[in-house]
Amino acid sequence: MDEPANAAQLPPKLKPMAISEFELIERFFRRPRSCRSDVILGVGDDAALLRVPGGSDLAVAMDTLVAGRHFPDTTPAYDIGYKALAVNLSDLAAMGATPAWATLSLTLPEANESWLRDFAAGFFALADRYQVDLVGGDTTRGPLAVTVQVHGLVERDRALRRDAARPGQKIFVTGTLGDAACALAQIEQHLPVEDALLARLNRPEPRVGFGLALTGVASAAIDISDGLLADLGHILAASACGATLWADRLPGSAALRSQPEATARAWQLGGGDDYELCFTVEPGNAGALSALSEQHHLPVTEIGVIEAAAGLRCVHDDGSNCQAGRRGFEHFGDATTS
Amino acid sequence: MDEPANAAQLPPKLKPMAISEFELIERFFRRPRSCRSDVILGVGDDAALLRVPGGSDLAVAMDTLVAGRHFPDTTPAYDIGYKALAVNLSDLAAMGATPAWATLSLTLPEANESWLRDFAAGFFALADRYQVDLVGGDTTRGPLAVTVQVHGLVERDRALRRDAARPGQKIFVTGTLGDAACALAQIEQHLPVEDALLARLNRPEPRVGFGLALTGVASAAIDISDGLLADLGHILAASACGATLWADRLPGSAALRSQPEATARAWQLGGGDDYELCFTVEPGNAGALSALSEQHHLPVTEIGVIEAAAGLRCVHDDGSNCQAGRRGFEHFGDATTS
Repeated sequence: MDEPANAAQLPPKLKPMAISEFELIERFFRRPRSCRSDVILGVGDDAALLRVPGGSDLAVAMDTLVAGRHFPDTTPAYDIGYKALAVNLSDLAAMGATPAWATLSLTLPEANESWLRDFAAGFFALADRYQVDLVGGDTTRGPLAVTVQVHGLVERDRALRRDAARPGQKIFVTGTLGDAACALAQIEQHLPVEDALLARLNRPEPRVGFGLALTGVASAAIDISDGLLADLGHILAASACGATLWADRLPGSAALRSQPEATARAWQLGGGDDYELCFTVEPGNAGALSALSEQHHLPVTEIGVIEAAAGLRCVHDDGSNCQAGRRGFEHFGDATTS
Repeated sequence: MDEPANAAQLPPKLKPMAISEFELIERFFRRPRSCRSDVILGVGDDAALLRVPGGSDLAVAMDTLVAGRHFPDTTPAYDIGYKALAVNLSDLAAMGATPAWATLSLTLPEANESWLRDFAAGFFALADRYQVDLVGGDTTRGPLAVTVQVHGLVERDRALRRDAARPGQKIFVTGTLGDAACALAQIEQHLPVEDALLARLNRPEPRVGFGLALTGVASAAIDISDGLLADLGHILAASACGATLWADRLPGSAALRSQPEATARAWQLGGGDDYELCFTVEPGNAGALSALSEQHHLPVTEIGVIEAAAGLRCVHDDGSNCQAGRRGFEHFGDATTS
């Protein structure tokens, strides 16, 4: 049970390097000093010790990325490191939590110095932007997979939960939808991919600052990782209500709008990996939301309304049903995945 | 990139089941109610929300188990679920922390109902014993791997750290060493394995209660996951000191003592997966330790002494060097792994 991994399973450029787990952590993941004074003990003991300020709740999110499933095998190591953290920060953003600490479990076919250096560079580039400290984790040999867990802090009873949507609230999304799915489709079809689209797939921007700002303004929130329909569906299920979604008003980038309309809409509704926020707002808070959007230079678009009747109704502006308005994918389903 | 997993990669008994990620979590991992009042929000939102009591530090540990690397492919699902949590609780035990919450990332070739039911049963059997609540995680399709992260609480400045060993302190271990390595060797050689040895490999007992009791009595502590030499080596490195280890005084079970002496000693020194605690104690605390050992019905054995001179000297009672006293394995090394 200790044979070397099959070379055919190695990601591109990944060649063996003789290194112990201990050295691997020391060389690539231990940093000269912590960027946070609340890290009592970081990497290198049985557990990390973290000091939580009084009056805070701890928000904890965990996501795993598996090679060939959550990212194409050709994805650069830098982007894998960046994205593994980004998708988790996006979860904290959707809770309105301030990121604080991360742990990393990295499973690699073999340790390769340049791959590890690039991976760590991508991870820490994002970590440093948000003062996130890597405080522990685990490295093992096996098929390439990355699990990151992030810990954030949120003032008691201020978190943006999925179960807080109520009939009459307006539904909004940040930014634009569908770009990541468009980039993924182009990669799979071996077409050239515009840089802007590829960046949306490989280096998604977690809406951390905006998520924080939404506490007190928005009611329910979720990040769009599995697709708008699936993720809005989670809000509706948790809140025991329904919604009407306006298929013709979904925000799209210029690059996406150059695609055939029906395809673009299917990506906007069902494509995952955008990591925009979808949230609900009481009509009386619409003005405050507008101000936040301007202040953060982040466009928000009203895309529907929460209703008492169960179910998600996706309609065109002429009132007809939108055929693309079916469910998004999940990772144990059979639909397109990222 | 969305082909079904190769059937040859499936663990035994794992057959496909049509299920979404959402259903998988709901059916196997969401429990009717939390066993803890400090879980504000558990499985099913972007993040879990946990309330940390004032005066506590949060201890966080994460470990990944990969099929064929950290457990034989033939390991029952129940034992995989149990052990994935046990190895993490063992890390908290080695910090002197009280376990509280866990997260789980489960990567599976395919969802299989009986496998998942058994895995969850093993996981929750141990979780319930320690009032640990599963508050979140992630399920993905891919080669079988399990990442668990546990969160525990420890009174400020009371944690058992690796860097607290000082010259003159006595070195102790709990229980017996080498059983898990013996069981693994027998499995690899297709020999029959005694039930007691197999249980040590597949269902290790995290020394949670004893670790808690050691705060204030022990100085440095670590759990033995990679082998006594490697793990004691971590204490020495973190504490910038050395030690002499008495090779003839290592505690062994009756089953282990029926093996050839040199083989048994090599397993005791270098074999991983025992999950006993190795810790150092000021000579003045030896009496208090004795009392704890009796109170917890857990034998402890004095196996050496911390010294100022760097290096780990492993000696026989006659003063000669022990040849088996070389380094243990690490998961990116080439020695035997579990």
